[in-house]
Amino acid sequence: MAVQKPSIPKGCRDFGQKEMARRNYIFDTIRSVFRTYGYQQIETPAMENLSTLLGKYGEEGDKLLFRILNSGDAFSGIDYEKYRLEGDNYNSKALSLQVCEKGLRYDLTVPFARYVVQHQNDISFPFKRFQIQPVWRADRPQKGRYREFYQCDVDVIGSRSQVNELELVQMVDAVFGKLGVRVGIKVNNRKVLTGFAEIAGAPDKVVDITVAIDKLDKIGLEKVEEEMASKGLGAEGIAVIRQILSLGGSFADKVAAMRGLINGGSASGVVSAAGLKGLEELEELFGLIAAAGVSAPVELDLSLARGLNYYTGAIFEVKALDWEIGSICGGGRYDNLTGIFGLPDLSGVGISFGADRIYDVLTGLDLFPAALESSTQLLFAVLGADELRYVLPIARSLREAGVAVEVYPEAAKLRKQFEYAERKAIPFLSINGSTEMEAGTVNIKNLVSGEQKAFPAADLDAIQEFLA
Amino acid sequence: MAVQKPSIPKGCRDFGQKEMARRNYIFDTIRSVFRTYGYQQIETPAMENLSTLLGKYGEEGDKLLFRILNSGDAFSGIDYEKYRLEGDNYNSKALSLQVCEKGLRYDLTVPFARYVVQHQNDISFPFKRFQIQPVWRADRPQKGRYREFYQCDVDVIGSRSQVNELELVQMVDAVFGKLGVRVGIKVNNRKVLTGFAEIAGAPDKVVDITVAIDKLDKIGLEKVEEEMASKGLGAEGIAVIRQILSLGGSFADKVAAMRGLINGGSASGVVSAAGLKGLEELEELFGLIAAAGVSAPVELDLSLARGLNYYTGAIFEVKALDWEIGSICGGGRYDNLTGIFGLPDLSGVGISFGADRIYDVLTGLDLFPAALESSTQLLFAVLGADELRYVLPIARSLREAGVAVEVYPEAAKLRKQFEYAERKAIPFLSINGSTEMEAGTVNIKNLVSGEQKAFPAADLDAIQEFLA
Repeated sequence: MAVQKPSIPKGCRDFGQKEMARRNYIFDTIRSVFRTYGYQQIETPAMENLSTLLGKYGEEGDKLLFRILNSGDAFSGIDYEKYRLEGDNYNSKALSLQVCEKGLRYDLTVPFARYVVQHQNDISFPFKRFQIQPVWRADRPQKGRYREFYQCDVDVIGSRSQVNELELVQMVDAVFGKLGVRVGIKVNNRKVLTGFAEIAGAPDKVVDITVAIDKLDKIGLEKVEEEMASKGLGAEGIAVIRQILSLGGSFADKVAAMRGLINGGSASGVVSAAGLKGLEELEELFGLIAAAGVSAPVELDLSLARGLNYYTGAIFEVKALDWEIGSICGGGRYDNLTGIFGLPDLSGVGISFGADRIYDVLTGLDLFPAALESSTQLLFAVLGADELRYVLPIARSLREAGVAVEVYPEAAKLRKQFEYAERKAIPFLSINGSTEMEAGTVNIKNLVSGEQKAFPAADLDAIQEFLA
Repeated sequence: MAVQKPSIPKGCRDFGQKEMARRNYIFDTIRSVFRTYGYQQIETPAMENLSTLLGKYGEEGDKLLFRILNSGDAFSGIDYEKYRLEGDNYNSKALSLQVCEKGLRYDLTVPFARYVVQHQNDISFPFKRFQIQPVWRADRPQKGRYREFYQCDVDVIGSRSQVNELELVQMVDAVFGKLGVRVGIKVNNRKVLTGFAEIAGAPDKVVDITVAIDKLDKIGLEKVEEEMASKGLGAEGIAVIRQILSLGGSFADKVAAMRGLINGGSASGVVSAAGLKGLEELEELFGLIAAAGVSAPVELDLSLARGLNYYTGAIFEVKALDWEIGSICGGGRYDNLTGIFGLPDLSGVGISFGADRIYDVLTGLDLFPAALESSTQLLFAVLGADELRYVLPIARSLREAGVAVEVYPEAAKLRKQFEYAERKAIPFLSINGSTEMEAGTVNIKNLVSGEQKAFPAADLDAIQEFLA
């Protein structure tokens, strides 16, 4: 067979040792925090039935699904003429449904909803789960956007209590505290956004209004107002929104002012029940946050909207304070995620950690522990067959004690063995010859400090202390 | 949209909390051992280019690849008539290459070979890597055979030293020692099998002979001889093989007797250079095993053949001694894995741990640690809003100390909260009311022993001791 120049599909990545060590550090940290809150890990298959995935991410999302060709004789039994549009153009969308029944998961949310419904009889509600797995999207690859990437989702489903929102905020706080990243946590509530639209006299424009408001940071108030006007919001409505967005002061000040407006005090005089409920939820959540104690600043941001349409209550966004990269974590409450699979009225709330961005923040701020750089602590260089046999049992004992040890597999030139230690950033090197063998000792050199010491081969404690 | 009854593709699995805890226990154990030997973790993408995968697993393997439909307008620009066989039968194999450029990885070996070649300039050889990721095969699902399953491979490439074989044996020994599974490790060498064929006067029948010999355990010597005869091996040749297979005694006895036969002492009088080299390698390996010390029994099994054709030296197979399930781990040395991708003459050796079978062995022998059953150590039941606020900071402190704690999110009926603890197998329950709030104490009950104690809320050490 001809020799192939190897490559991987665009938008996909190999992860080498260093990246894996760093990624595992992030995931292990997140996992350890999730566990202290009683969240349980699950995994779902990479392939889902297309009937599970289609229609859940909008028309654009359907196009971005990676579809799996049916096994066997997938292309027979099809009347291709039926699918011909003109010339050699065919209806690819319809044909793909003829030859593909399965697709790769696009996110962890829909598989989670499917899982909850499918296993509802085995689940104790409220069901607290987390899931760390790759997802696949046929997006156009670009800087920071991949076709395969890990998502890291944590959700609780089956409880409407704000204690769940609190726990998510606490977990965010704990994760980034452990990682050493200073973050700000922004909170808003979708019901309050609904309230805005209602008291602006445009309950049907809640999506337009929130989409516009969401851009406040980027484009400023004037452009937001222009956008709302272009969507048909009248001058009075715009004035109400302007009034809300200009609210300042403490959390209590903002809530009190909003309550006045939402409770009939705005120009429209409309009372928004949804808005009042949203304010109540916010007050409850911020009260719980104060009671429990959270180290990171948590702020009510009335312009926070988040794109996903299925949110119905609290919404969250987390940003690193010392590194510019956009949101590194976000989520919110949804009321009917499982309805599409036949289990209505389960309310849930969840957040997703952006692993790739967190990786970039930790790299940018140089926050990865130095210990991740090296996987091996000590290399035994090998001078010959007898010397090899001499160090093997010592290496074994150190490994049993948990020390990462390598024995160079050949009596190669010392320079070569030394370079191997250097390239792998192994900090300690042990060279043992007839002197050590006769004395029953091990000679170890700290390649960083240059310090060199001999130990009785049996004195594992002393050796470990030197290596520590 | 119509309600869908959710399901997953056949041959795929969801893993719930308990299975995940158990699977993580296995993988974490394996990983921790790999690390103490200086092996580095890598990950490769789920999708590889079909050009990387096709032709690497035989014709049957090509059929079992899951292929990914190209994004966009995959079906246009194709002259379907060209692919029509007869009626509405089409050449699915050829058409699939028109609409699919990518496939899901079928194993970890080919992606590893691709990785080594692609990243050869960034790799320090000998390159010791491990990889734990799912693979996908469109096999017919049946008991114990899945379409998505994890492989766990450890390989070292770029060194011909038997120290590498030794390390694999040591890692097998250490992994199963940690898991508490008694195993037997069988070793053979492909060069010795080549020697058998050569001194049997049938160097061209090495595959037929090894395939037959491999069945010795299952079908007995008589049937093995019948099979070899049916493949055209003459009576003299069969007599030589019979002589080899009847060799008994210690490792040294077997090797000495084989050396005699392979070195011209058989009926054919043939001297097999390959066979002698294989014996040398075996002697070297068993000598290293004796020097390093391995707890599990390691046995030379002359009938061990293993199916894969790319092995060229040592081959391994590991079986559980106390649970009947077939091989739970196996592998061997290969000489030219990366040649197909343009990097010839790299010798490597590796083994693969069968995660699903190891899971079954640990389940069958009841060897999973009891601690895996529960993810949460303590549940704070909640009587009302004030009581909730009282326990939140205590829960936070315990979590910061690493204890897995849940706070029931609502002031539900105590029976419901109690049942939640029971269903999740949470061993400790804390119920706190006005008495505890006034006294500043926490009341904790051990649900297993029934023991109940009150602690000052600030005395985390005492609480943790009680929970331990």
